Amino acid sequence: MSIIMKGADVAKSIKEELVKEVEALKEKGITPCLSIIRVGERSDDLSYERGARKRMEMTGIQCRVTALPKDVSQEEFEQTFSRINEDSDVHGILLLRPLPKSLDEGPVRAMIHPNKDVDGMSPVNMAKVFSGDETGFAPCTAQAVMEILQYYGVMPRGKRITILGRSMVVGRPLAMSLLKADGTVTLCHTRTEELAQECNKAQILVAAAGKARMVTEDMVGENAVVIDVGINVDEDGGLCGDVDFEAVKNKAAYISPVPGGVGSVTSSVLAKHVVKSAKGFCKMLAQNSSIW
Amino acid sequence: MSIIMKGADVAKSIKEELVKEVEALKEKGITPCLSIIRVGERSDDLSYERGARKRMEMTGIQCRVTALPKDVSQEEFEQTFSRINEDSDVHGILLLRPLPKSLDEGPVRAMIHPNKDVDGMSPVNMAKVFSGDETGFAPCTAQAVMEILQYYGVMPRGKRITILGRSMVVGRPLAMSLLKADGTVTLCHTRTEELAQECNKAQILVAAAGKARMVTEDMVGENAVVIDVGINVDEDGGLCGDVDFEAVKNKAAYISPVPGGVGSVTSSVLAKHVVKSAKGFCKMLAQNSSIW
Repeated sequence: MSIIMKGADVAKSIKEELVKEVEALKEKGITPCLSIIRVGERSDDLSYERGARKRMEMTGIQCRVTALPKDVSQEEFEQTFSRINEDSDVHGILLLRPLPKSLDEGPVRAMIHPNKDVDGMSPVNMAKVFSGDETGFAPCTAQAVMEILQYYGVMPRGKRITILGRSMVVGRPLAMSLLKADGTVTLCHTRTEELAQECNKAQILVAAAGKARMVTEDMVGENAVVIDVGINVDEDGGLCGDVDFEAVKNKAAYISPVPGGVGSVTSSVLAKHVVKSAKGFCKMLAQNSSIW
Repeated sequence: MSIIMKGADVAKSIKEELVKEVEALKEKGITPCLSIIRVGERSDDLSYERGARKRMEMTGIQCRVTALPKDVSQEEFEQTFSRINEDSDVHGILLLRPLPKSLDEGPVRAMIHPNKDVDGMSPVNMAKVFSGDETGFAPCTAQAVMEILQYYGVMPRGKRITILGRSMVVGRPLAMSLLKADGTVTLCHTRTEELAQECNKAQILVAAAGKARMVTEDMVGENAVVIDVGINVDEDGGLCGDVDFEAVKNKAAYISPVPGGVGSVTSSVLAKHVVKSAKGFCKMLAQNSSIW
């Protein structure tokens, strides 16, 4: 029987640390502030926004939401973004994505201040994650996997790690973070042949493919650590991950559930990133530097 | 007996293509121009510079060299770099590295125009390589490996690929290019346990570890494709790669030698990148756009 990696426990531990840091910042006159930008009313976005607001509130971080209509013009979208980007009271910006197809996110990716880019969408932060420079911000979901591993004392160093999925929000940045932590990382995807074998050999297996219960028992090695990043709706309308949890849970040493696993840690990482940014801002003020 | 992947053959093929493109550009009044910036007189730099100059000359690309003294100040270094960066006659800039320890390359990395950054040192190009956006420039050595594979008809798609070494000039960008080409990529390094096994299972093995003849026969699978990126000096003062060529050459299906393999293709990739940049410049002029 495996150990269930509960996101709530990881989130609680992160919160306890952050609450102290937020208090220390407030004593110095700085209230960490996250600005969420949402375009339209997608239910995924609204759900993520609710979770983020709640998390910021319980951590003492200010949270503002700017909601734009679904048919906002590119120009107005960019102007709104720019105004928030230039607001010195804002330490972190979260743009809910994907955007409506009518909008191009390229200009705001290039525009966002790297220090405020708490979900790692700018080229500067991508390059930092790629090069193993930990002064930057990795996408929150990728970082949430790192937090779970750390909380449960799973050390990536020297381990065979297989990541299923090569997206820019999970697979690729996570591969770079795990490589930085000295893991031996294999990236698999839809074109991988002998996928079961690549998964089976892994000591740590991360499923981020977005395909309901695709990771079956035979694909998991004895005593592997299995992290499930997938959030899918199954045929009965229920939430499920990329891993067949019921079948795999007796074989793995550790397994993260869905829901209640990685998804429960993402907003904590977001809060952690906002605090990191606010601390950088505070340090800059102390140094009287004009460049944040 | 394996097929020897000769860098000179790959370089010749690239040159033939480029010569035509350079002629077409010259007819439009544009002479592609590479500007090399060298600090000090390191023999590695001088050797690379000679090779690059020769290659540009035979391809019809103009090549300028700016040599700065080893003890140049950070300020003067940045001013010189900036002047070349702003010169509209220059389409590509190659900064020979590593720089002397007294200099910080961070400011010029941030400064270099991404379109002139033909060796992929800027965050913008790193982020493009990371995200699989082929409008950017990968570091020339990493790209040279891709050119060799392509020339010899080795398709990465679906293949198990092991890369030895995780540097920012070879291992990591190459991993991203091979991933983009649908390979199943494993990155190994000094902390990898069971290294022989990780190498042995590879259908394509790339050695970029910088350790003389570390890849022995037992580490190579039957009929594997072996690319050797290492350039080392052995105990007798001779050049050798990361692969024990004599022992491996009978087991591999394809193998690239050292010298005469990847190193012979790097300057061709550099020329290709300068031409790509000059073509972009030409297109910009045609569109009357002020933004390159």
